[in-house]
Amino acid sequence: MRPDQKGDATSREGDKSRAPKELTPAPGTSVRHVVPVMSGKGGVGKSTVAALLAVRLTMAGWQVGILDADVTGPSIPKLFGIKPSPVVAKGGLVPATSRLGIRVMSLNLLLPREDEPVIWRGPLIAGAVRQFWTDVLWGQLDCLVVDLPPGTGDAPLTVLQSIPVDGVVIVSAPQQLTTMVVSKAIGMARRLGAPILGLVENMSGVRCSRCGELIQVFGPSQARRICGSAGIRLLGVLPLDPELSRLGDRGAIEEYAGGEFLGVVASLLEADQARHQRGGRS
Amino acid sequence: MRPDQKGDATSREGDKSRAPKELTPAPGTSVRHVVPVMSGKGGVGKSTVAALLAVRLTMAGWQVGILDADVTGPSIPKLFGIKPSPVVAKGGLVPATSRLGIRVMSLNLLLPREDEPVIWRGPLIAGAVRQFWTDVLWGQLDCLVVDLPPGTGDAPLTVLQSIPVDGVVIVSAPQQLTTMVVSKAIGMARRLGAPILGLVENMSGVRCSRCGELIQVFGPSQARRICGSAGIRLLGVLPLDPELSRLGDRGAIEEYAGGEFLGVVASLLEADQARHQRGGRS
Repeated sequence: MRPDQKGDATSREGDKSRAPKELTPAPGTSVRHVVPVMSGKGGVGKSTVAALLAVRLTMAGWQVGILDADVTGPSIPKLFGIKPSPVVAKGGLVPATSRLGIRVMSLNLLLPREDEPVIWRGPLIAGAVRQFWTDVLWGQLDCLVVDLPPGTGDAPLTVLQSIPVDGVVIVSAPQQLTTMVVSKAIGMARRLGAPILGLVENMSGVRCSRCGELIQVFGPSQARRICGSAGIRLLGVLPLDPELSRLGDRGAIEEYAGGEFLGVVASLLEADQARHQRGGRS
Repeated sequence: MRPDQKGDATSREGDKSRAPKELTPAPGTSVRHVVPVMSGKGGVGKSTVAALLAVRLTMAGWQVGILDADVTGPSIPKLFGIKPSPVVAKGGLVPATSRLGIRVMSLNLLLPREDEPVIWRGPLIAGAVRQFWTDVLWGQLDCLVVDLPPGTGDAPLTVLQSIPVDGVVIVSAPQQLTTMVVSKAIGMARRLGAPILGLVENMSGVRCSRCGELIQVFGPSQARRICGSAGIRLLGVLPLDPELSRLGDRGAIEEYAGGEFLGVVASLLEADQARHQRGGRS
């Protein structure tokens, strides 16, 4: 890969077979698309966006899984109201299933208590992430959404290097401090040759529940600026919505009505696949 | 250390000399107190709290440094408006200095561009954190504030194991999802025998700029509940304040008027030290 390669979905070169050290998933597993959700920055709502993306793709008729690669700070089971329920079957680990039928694997499903700390150094974290790909009986999936932890360390590096990624969704928030760290994540995806599907800006202001005023808690939106300078697509903007926090805390994120724009990810993935099947870039 | 040990500042057992594998700082360095700011969760404002804590201690007449242990997502230089300025002197790295005189070391000061990604696995990250303690010419400090990254992985583990920690400040936010992950960080500090000075709840609602309504964006405060169940002190609560984001983005966090309650950390540290000098716990 050239270091100056654009790395977005429309300009990627090569195909999955050229990826280095790609790992083989569990027997009986077939995953059409792998989509990591990353940010670099913590607390911008990667897990929320990953969850809403999985919900939108499920509503579009896809069979979807979520691999929670945030080993030391996993949020996915809580958002979906899934309690620890480790099932070990012949051949591997069985993912939990949400109300809508989304298959979920997270380290928190394997802990005796959800607030138990996992005090692990990098190699163990990378090992867990690899096992969530190689040892989980994902079955037939149209899309596996991967919820990455903050930073550009072991877990994102392991996912981008050893799982065949179709496209990355970047999550940002308006504060400039955030956009600086998000730029690091965009740079990492490009250096590792992972195509970028687009960016979601989260926490983009809150409406006053009494007077309707828009309060830009983290400052004005930076989404168009980052997308413009990085040359990536703006998928959409999510407000700071107390309803989203409430549903997440109740384990009922599947009931949230927002984030419809995330459905576009399905057509982006299909278009990209069609282009590759035609044997080249259009 | 017993696994059931409370681990807060008033009940710690032993002294610094009993810590395992403690590293020696650079020649000429003498640090009276080391205070890591941790959370487990990303995006709750650890860096903001670390910065405001350093400012309050400086205003109380202390000489303060900040060790930015968030190697892959460093925020401290941006908050203080400090640009990359690596100075290597005989014997080690010279920290940058903020307007108020706070000494700062961060990986972002050593990068050619602030949005350059640092794609490192755990052992390299741990090595950088160790070097920020052993190879930086901190000089005489009353307090070194350590800004930890999210999670309970390499960087927090390295700091808690190899730097003599006087007390940890925990940062939380109201969402229950956050408090679950914050509980993991509290558990980690206790398991490693690090005393906990107390908890700061950040992002505790925003006031509408037009009508004054309090909007609890992330739900009602959970601070008293966590502090009660974990048996730790509530240091104070910071609102979601657009002014704080603005000042942070302008590199002028030292001008922020809030967070006075963080000054109490100085007296907690002094009281703890006095107790130890008297040769035991009161």
